Amino acid sequence: MDGRDRLNSSVSGGYLRMRMVDLIAKKRDGRELSTEEIRFLVDGYTNGSIPDYQMSAWAMAVFFRGMTPRETRDLTLAMAGSGEQLDLSSLPGIKVDKHSTGGVGDKTTLVVAPLAAAAGLPVAKMSGRGLGFSGGTIDKLESFAGFQAERTREQFLQQVREIGVAIISQSGNLTPADKKLYALRDVTATVESTPLIASSIMSKKIAAGADAILLDVKVGKGAFMKSLEKAEELARTMVEIGRQVGRKTVAVISDMNQPLGFAVGNSLEVQEAIRTLSGKGPADLTELALEIGGRMLVLGGLAPDAEAGRARLADLIASGKAVDKLAEMVAAQGGDKGQVYDPSRLPQARIQCELTAAASGYVTEIDAETVGRASVVLGAGRLTKEMLIDPAVGLVLHKKQGDPVRAGDVLSTLHANREDLLQAALAELEKAFRIGPEEPAPGQLIYKIVE
Amino acid sequence: MDGRDRLNSSVSGGYLRMRMVDLIAKKRDGRELSTEEIRFLVDGYTNGSIPDYQMSAWAMAVFFRGMTPRETRDLTLAMAGSGEQLDLSSLPGIKVDKHSTGGVGDKTTLVVAPLAAAAGLPVAKMSGRGLGFSGGTIDKLESFAGFQAERTREQFLQQVREIGVAIISQSGNLTPADKKLYALRDVTATVESTPLIASSIMSKKIAAGADAILLDVKVGKGAFMKSLEKAEELARTMVEIGRQVGRKTVAVISDMNQPLGFAVGNSLEVQEAIRTLSGKGPADLTELALEIGGRMLVLGGLAPDAEAGRARLADLIASGKAVDKLAEMVAAQGGDKGQVYDPSRLPQARIQCELTAAASGYVTEIDAETVGRASVVLGAGRLTKEMLIDPAVGLVLHKKQGDPVRAGDVLSTLHANREDLLQAALAELEKAFRIGPEEPAPGQLIYKIVE
Repeated sequence: MDGRDRLNSSVSGGYLRMRMVDLIAKKRDGRELSTEEIRFLVDGYTNGSIPDYQMSAWAMAVFFRGMTPRETRDLTLAMAGSGEQLDLSSLPGIKVDKHSTGGVGDKTTLVVAPLAAAAGLPVAKMSGRGLGFSGGTIDKLESFAGFQAERTREQFLQQVREIGVAIISQSGNLTPADKKLYALRDVTATVESTPLIASSIMSKKIAAGADAILLDVKVGKGAFMKSLEKAEELARTMVEIGRQVGRKTVAVISDMNQPLGFAVGNSLEVQEAIRTLSGKGPADLTELALEIGGRMLVLGGLAPDAEAGRARLADLIASGKAVDKLAEMVAAQGGDKGQVYDPSRLPQARIQCELTAAASGYVTEIDAETVGRASVVLGAGRLTKEMLIDPAVGLVLHKKQGDPVRAGDVLSTLHANREDLLQAALAELEKAFRIGPEEPAPGQLIYKIVE
Repeated sequence: MDGRDRLNSSVSGGYLRMRMVDLIAKKRDGRELSTEEIRFLVDGYTNGSIPDYQMSAWAMAVFFRGMTPRETRDLTLAMAGSGEQLDLSSLPGIKVDKHSTGGVGDKTTLVVAPLAAAAGLPVAKMSGRGLGFSGGTIDKLESFAGFQAERTREQFLQQVREIGVAIISQSGNLTPADKKLYALRDVTATVESTPLIASSIMSKKIAAGADAILLDVKVGKGAFMKSLEKAEELARTMVEIGRQVGRKTVAVISDMNQPLGFAVGNSLEVQEAIRTLSGKGPADLTELALEIGGRMLVLGGLAPDAEAGRARLADLIASGKAVDKLAEMVAAQGGDKGQVYDPSRLPQARIQCELTAAASGYVTEIDAETVGRASVVLGAGRLTKEMLIDPAVGLVLHKKQGDPVRAGDVLSTLHANREDLLQAALAELEKAFRIGPEEPAPGQLIYKIVE
């Protein structure tokens, strides 16, 4: 990546005559911005010479006019080059990064990272914390006593060299342009733009040093993308960016109408991930982890095709090597690996309370977003960056969509530490379930592979 | 106007739950904002609780989605009520304000204000200074030695009560929301939105105390609106706002492809206005002034129809009362009224230089914007608010569109005070003229009356 160098030479080169107001007008009128113009815009916004009020007007114009693939590529590269970039070239092999667009109960990274590492794929992963109704991998990992998510660049690379896997929190000055633009979009109703979402995600992956990228694009009630059409548009845009910047990218479009697996909440999800790595996890989570992990092995040149990749990973689960790899990683980052082998020692909530079915029939819907909100009420997530989360709390589903239920059956167990929050969480969770007389058509887990 | 009171009561009433980001999203998605929401937005922007970056995103959404007549009315009233409002109720009769959307050589107010006042219509007018290639009435009036454009509210009203007319510069805290929003739109490529332009103009007229409004909407190469369709859309939007807020509004759509009259430049335009008030002005300027003035008399209840109004004004020109009224106004505002009767004592430039025709044929085009730019080169206008203007300089056309010319004929005389600017001004002015072999179809001065 020589993005930064090219950027600097351009600043001294031909920027003097450019005016942001003209670039806004150009986009507003549906015309394509040049590579130079997009670099000017990203560089100026990063260094503060272009103010927020111009950037937000431009973002709104992008919302209405879209961006061409070339513009989207240029925006991605300019944002990737706006700050530090991670150099993973000292690690052997093809570095494959994985990204999920976010969902409720989505602990896939906790399963896939050690699994792929056990298969020999170097996993040097930066993850985020949760905000809103979907959780973050770092929050979940911090359920392990002593786990350190903040590592120096050198510690991080050293750990991957030694044991093949590390998951740390995003740190340093990676993609400052994206950080600033994302915060602005969040308060100016310009989040919902496919090229802006795609370039935001891809710029972070590129800056984090990925050679290839596996994207888990969630679709449904608990996902940002509510329709398959929108999810596919986002997936195709990101795969196209990957193609344009020479990072092989594959997107799996998976269901987020109902939560993934049964557990929602940090420690509860870690426990479920451990069960899955031990071959005793929920069917949907196991299936998605094998699909994603198998394709990561293909991207990393360690399997000829997805089927072979899956088979390899299934063996690693059966042999116990997968769960051992998680224990190794937890220990390497200062955590208590004993908790991996005895998950009952992970944080547990004081109070358990059951939600039961009011009627008999079939579970026709479990609205993932509402389930996520119920878990946030209990303290499992944060609505603002400053909120503290309680790793022990959350909820476990006992029924999933399509399951038959009888009135009085337990639908879900809530795990709480504060009595006063329980009623509100119960009331919220109750809204998530729909029970009807007819057995619903079987749901789909994986809708499409875009590559 | 109880706009301000209603606004304040609303602040304490129901604003707490509103979030600007939701209002941006609502407009972005093509939905109509409520009256309360628009007041929240204007009030918040005026008091600084809504930042520029949200306002510019909203303005860009308005650019794409437009506003309903009800929204446009609410925005107009909220901006009109955002600061001080002029109370003209102590003046007798119906107060009719006049506004031009701006053009080159447009000295109509200098003619119409004393003319309408001579007919008994109270003219209490606030005007602006020029920016860009079109001039401002206040700059022109300051060609009179000693003329005072800054007056206290009381002096202003007193003068109208005594002599029937005063033209002062916009002062005080009138429509601060519009000032702030206009400055923001200027740098975020959101100027070109009909409802935003219309509400900006109408809010100022309402805050300035108008009971009725005569709009001169310019269309053509030297106007902001380049097409008749766009000009008519703006005119209709403003007339509709007037209807909704109970201010009878009439719009005259007039030509600004070529400059109005012959003179461009402050003192030169004043001299031409004096000639017009004396019955010796250019045909187009005289015609437009009678049309506008006549309709203002109708709006003011002083003439049964436009024809009768025109006839009344023509008499006042013939009798010398029109030019006397200008002299009275100049004197009342500290100016030298002797200059009205001996215009040669107005500022005169040292250097005169002629532009001659390179070929024979017909003048097929005199691009008003280019002529305006040539006059700015000479120092007759300002490109930034800080620039000083030279009242004496400018240019006088000797030919207008459709006139036959022979090679060597004088097309225009430039009036300059600086030798070093002359060549650049000449080169610019030369570009404005097109001479062709065929006589062009006669141009139109007044395209349409919208009421």
